[in-house]
Amino acid sequence: MSELVAVILGSDSDLPLVSKTISLLEEFGVGVRTAILSAHRTPEELFAFVGEADKAGVKVFIAAAGMAAHLAGAVAARTLRPVIGVPIPSAPFEGLDSLLSTVQMPGGIPVATVGAGPAGAKNAALLALQILALGDSGLEKKLAEARSRERAQVLEKNRRLKERGHRDYGV
Amino acid sequence: MSELVAVILGSDSDLPLVSKTISLLEEFGVGVRTAILSAHRTPEELFAFVGEADKAGVKVFIAAAGMAAHLAGAVAARTLRPVIGVPIPSAPFEGLDSLLSTVQMPGGIPVATVGAGPAGAKNAALLALQILALGDSGLEKKLAEARSRERAQVLEKNRRLKERGHRDYGV
Amino acid sequence: MSELVAVILGSDSDLPLVSKTISLLEEFGVGVRTAILSAHRTPEELFAFVGEADKAGVKVFIAAAGMAAHLAGAVAARTLRPVIGVPIPSAPFEGLDSLLSTVQMPGGIPVATVGAGPAGAKNAALLALQILALGDSGLEKKLAEARSRERAQVLEKNRRLKERGHRDYGV
Amino acid sequence: MSELVAVILGSDSDLPLVSKTISLLEEFGVGVRTAILSAHRTPEELFAFVGEADKAGVKVFIAAAGMAAHLAGAVAARTLRPVIGVPIPSAPFEGLDSLLSTVQMPGGIPVATVGAGPAGAKNAALLALQILALGDSGLEKKLAEARSRERAQVLEKNRRLKERGHRDYGV
Amino acid sequence: MSELVAVILGSDSDLPLVSKTISLLEEFGVGVRTAILSAHRTPEELFAFVGEADKAGVKVFIAAAGMAAHLAGAVAARTLRPVIGVPIPSAPFEGLDSLLSTVQMPGGIPVATVGAGPAGAKNAALLALQILALGDSGLEKKLAEARSRERAQVLEKNRRLKERGHRDYGV
Amino acid sequence: MSELVAVILGSDSDLPLVSKTISLLEEFGVGVRTAILSAHRTPEELFAFVGEADKAGVKVFIAAAGMAAHLAGAVAARTLRPVIGVPIPSAPFEGLDSLLSTVQMPGGIPVATVGAGPAGAKNAALLALQILALGDSGLEKKLAEARSRERAQVLEKNRRLKERGHRDYGV
Amino acid sequence: MSELVAVILGSDSDLPLVSKTISLLEEFGVGVRTAILSAHRTPEELFAFVGEADKAGVKVFIAAAGMAAHLAGAVAARTLRPVIGVPIPSAPFEGLDSLLSTVQMPGGIPVATVGAGPAGAKNAALLALQILALGDSGLEKKLAEARSRERAQVLEKNRRLKERGHRDYGV
Amino acid sequence: MSELVAVILGSDSDLPLVSKTISLLEEFGVGVRTAILSAHRTPEELFAFVGEADKAGVKVFIAAAGMAAHLAGAVAARTLRPVIGVPIPSAPFEGLDSLLSTVQMPGGIPVATVGAGPAGAKNAALLALQILALGDSGLEKKLAEARSRERAQVLEKNRRLKERGHRDYGV
Repeated sequence: MSELVAVILGSDSDLPLVSKTISLLEEFGVGVRTAILSAHRTPEELFAFVGEADKAGVKVFIAAAGMAAHLAGAVAARTLRPVIGVPIPSAPFEGLDSLLSTVQMPGGIPVATVGAGPAGAKNAALLALQILALGDSGLEKKLAEARSRERAQVLEKNRRLKERGHRDYGV
Repeated sequence: MSELVAVILGSDSDLPLVSKTISLLEEFGVGVRTAILSAHRTPEELFAFVGEADKAGVKVFIAAAGMAAHLAGAVAARTLRPVIGVPIPSAPFEGLDSLLSTVQMPGGIPVATVGAGPAGAKNAALLALQILALGDSGLEKKLAEARSRERAQVLEKNRRLKERGHRDYGV
Repeated sequence: MSELVAVILGSDSDLPLVSKTISLLEEFGVGVRTAILSAHRTPEELFAFVGEADKAGVKVFIAAAGMAAHLAGAVAARTLRPVIGVPIPSAPFEGLDSLLSTVQMPGGIPVATVGAGPAGAKNAALLALQILALGDSGLEKKLAEARSRERAQVLEKNRRLKERGHRDYGV
Repeated sequence: MSELVAVILGSDSDLPLVSKTISLLEEFGVGVRTAILSAHRTPEELFAFVGEADKAGVKVFIAAAGMAAHLAGAVAARTLRPVIGVPIPSAPFEGLDSLLSTVQMPGGIPVATVGAGPAGAKNAALLALQILALGDSGLEKKLAEARSRERAQVLEKNRRLKERGHRDYGV
Repeated sequence: MSELVAVILGSDSDLPLVSKTISLLEEFGVGVRTAILSAHRTPEELFAFVGEADKAGVKVFIAAAGMAAHLAGAVAARTLRPVIGVPIPSAPFEGLDSLLSTVQMPGGIPVATVGAGPAGAKNAALLALQILALGDSGLEKKLAEARSRERAQVLEKNRRLKERGHRDYGV
Repeated sequence: MSELVAVILGSDSDLPLVSKTISLLEEFGVGVRTAILSAHRTPEELFAFVGEADKAGVKVFIAAAGMAAHLAGAVAARTLRPVIGVPIPSAPFEGLDSLLSTVQMPGGIPVATVGAGPAGAKNAALLALQILALGDSGLEKKLAEARSRERAQVLEKNRRLKERGHRDYGV
Repeated sequence: MSELVAVILGSDSDLPLVSKTISLLEEFGVGVRTAILSAHRTPEELFAFVGEADKAGVKVFIAAAGMAAHLAGAVAARTLRPVIGVPIPSAPFEGLDSLLSTVQMPGGIPVATVGAGPAGAKNAALLALQILALGDSGLEKKLAEARSRERAQVLEKNRRLKERGHRDYGV
Repeated sequence: MSELVAVILGSDSDLPLVSKTISLLEEFGVGVRTAILSAHRTPEELFAFVGEADKAGVKVFIAAAGMAAHLAGAVAARTLRPVIGVPIPSAPFEGLDSLLSTVQMPGGIPVATVGAGPAGAKNAALLALQILALGDSGLEKKLAEARSRERAQVLEKNRRLKERGHRDYGV
């Protein structure tokens, strides 16, 4: 299975959040090339990884990092593929630093930033899948099914609330 | 020329910033479908626009809005195409409200958020072009040329600084 | 008992906070129509719910959501009834995102925003009751009694502090 | 014409923003009782004003103030009528102080907060009108017409953009 | 012992922090008049308390409250005595709301604001004692002794660090 | 006239704001000892000034500074007299830095902080006067008159609004 | 071993974080002079310590403090040696106060500020070592080795992720 | 004159601020190697510049950038010399983004961050000079003189205030 998405973590402490990103891509049948590489500690290996991934046919990059999160920007500086940035929250500024470091890119080098936290980690995968689905109608169908499932889950919860009432809903 | 990108503004007061987004897409030869439509004042027309654009072959949506910027999220709720959100700064919170309203989407409905301000407006176009270039090698080549030009401009400024010195640079 | 207030949750994770809103309305003898519906995952069902509630005589809407909290705004776009927005705090931005996403509405589509957190969940119910009480003197009397009770509780605490002193108060 | 809404300003420096609130209420044919009264400099006169307005049949209070904006909360402490708070932005914190001071009310004393800035000033009037319209079908009709006009204006702008294009739109 | 300082809490949930304020005043031999009274739930009793305390010879007021903390401002509006405001941190905004609501008072009605958190609760007492000491040389001497003790404690810690080293300091 | 208040500016760029503080104290007939001294550039002269002022009978210190505003804290470390801190707003953080640097003092060394901006500069003087008035009934009377004047001014504005209406008020 | 770096803590509650700073310096064979001294509680001893350290040949100062963190600035005011400031996070503002109080120094008195939190405590030591290494090629070599080790650790983690996959990585 | 400091700007729009940094270094007789190079647009040229400067004997790097300011971090990843980061304020987040992107570096790669704004630009030069002065007693003497001059300027302003009074000071 060819690897169409590369997921790069700035640190293995980001893995609990980002593991969901990778899993979701795999559930959709998309090959993922993963790496733990730091823009600051291993810049050369990072750039080598990006260059090789690019040549090997990776279509979308996902970069997750915390604090002064330069990872997504550093990747975006080395490829013309779309780069998705996932700001990881960490003490003490809880993601305000990583969000601003990821999203406020200078003109010319875009980073497609998703939210800080678990929802962002999930959405990074979905955004990558939406991009890939532009050229893959099978993937587009799976995305439509996934959205229907999400919709059904909300409606199921709505039904449960109606049946049980708010006191016995049981969150 | 078929319209591959839809650019939606929440208000015509966003046009000075977003006009650059549209121009840049046009410079790359990409057809753009534009609209001024509000998630709050014209939700039905907005959803109709999204549905029609989707059917007509639009591949990427760009939505720009200020304040409690729901526009990109509302578009993303109605399409499976990638949606790029451009937070527009406005008084008094100068984009903190529109950035958080655009980027902190719930799991399942991603918005690819770019920076607040002019750099974000430019990067929204470039991100859309990067997405389209995955299936269009001509576009990919143009993007590579554009990046080279940006690189050359920086190097030209660098040269000028070296020649003239910082006192006579003349910003 | 006719349902005069609709309480909509963007997610069932909001129920622990919002359950107090619903309970308080019920204690005042006001019928409540509840739903778990998402502006992003189930926009059509949300709009249908609002439309039906509107026709069925619901007078006030309460919408509670976290993160990029578009729920109250989406409801307000579909009804002329007063809409009360309850920003739900959640990691990592702890309600700054949901507060700004709820309160900074564009001109034309107001959302009556209450505080983020438990006090806001309680106040949403009281605000709805104050609105209903404009046409219901029985309700107005109950509100006056509730406020007297709150006042009495503070005074009782004040008395206890005076009697026991601050060391033996026993929080 | 009986006065159904009271609009209180904490300072006459708030008048440029709040004048729109009053004008809009007047355009809808609603009588407005206005006052410049400060929670801190004239607490007694403020409380007297609230008490008299309450007795005279005022149904909704709107209170606009900047900085440590206590005005809306102070009014809400003295009436059971709905109180709408308008946070006025001012240097140096540009409305973050007035927004938090207005919205983060303790449980028991709700303030229906609208956005900081001109959109909030307009929405305060509309929210008051929505509340009054619950018992006044004439007002409800006018609100529906106003919303249609807003919708038409957006659609007119959308048409203009389509006709003229983004370069010749002429903001 | 005549009561020279009044300490008012907006809620008994503030007592764990404010108990230190009261204890410290008592350790200095200053009589304290305490109350739990809310600017919003019991405005009349609050104003009565302030008026009586004022007449009874209270020289300094300390008011502690959280969220949209109007308590200190409401007290300051009713007395010409110095009023010290203690912002209490609480979820979700952790004191940013109470700090801004307490400190950003309009011109004419000052509130002497101390820090949010335990250090602020302690400093409120010390500030009141410094004010009282202007007319009480016995108190001034005690303050000088207290400061010497604080100084000695720091120097003792410094000595301990020197002796034990940072690894065996034992925090 | 003996100098009872010392007003220290960290920089002469703070003078436009702080000049109001000094003028107000002078209008109340209170002698003021002024200085431009920096906690960082002239620590020794600052400490000498504080020591001499203390001995000369200064009762209250007012310290105004911007950015990482250490001035008030440095003064408070050298005297047992009450120290009032005035956070001066300046670009780019517009007073958030000076407010937090002034108010968040460690336990043991209180700074009585007033608001950032012109209202704070005025309130610093009034707070000093309130403290001095505890031992000076003449001053207390003047403060009462000043507050009455402020009250009268608000009521005059209120009257004007009533007479002229909001359209012709003429801010 | 001569002491080339002085590490000053504003409080022993900062020791858990700062102990890493000291340990790291010691691991590099650099003598460290440590102190717990407060800019506010023991200004004279602090200044004496700085003066003596300066004379004794200390080349770099590191100062760690929380809240209104004046320590680094107070040290910088008394020496011409480079001063590194470490903002310590503490409730309720979690380092925003200490960061701004440390970094926003007035022109003329620089503080080299590192990040708030554990990474900052480590980086303070490394920055001091980088400064010392300018005149000590042995130290420079050790720094190069340390950076290689960091690089190797990241690459080892990268290898582990490749071998085990993200599910079995075992954070 | 050998170049001991390298000053790198992310964009020529930073030159008005950073020109002061360069001028100040030159006034101290320190050779400066300057460049306009972007971490994102010209990463290779940036790394080449850093490598060459390093070999050519540059001892300290100063990097100034705005928005998601990765420049200082990217330089620090490529050298073991001390790197000073200057956060440049720009709309809409006015330096909060560049400050956090510069200072919140991961452990292992320190950036010595100075304040955002003109004071920071000046302090970057002074910090570099302090570092160089550790091995250059002539420079140390000049720094002592400069600090004396700053001190004298403050004292001159203090004298002027004493002579002219605050009304005739003439800022």
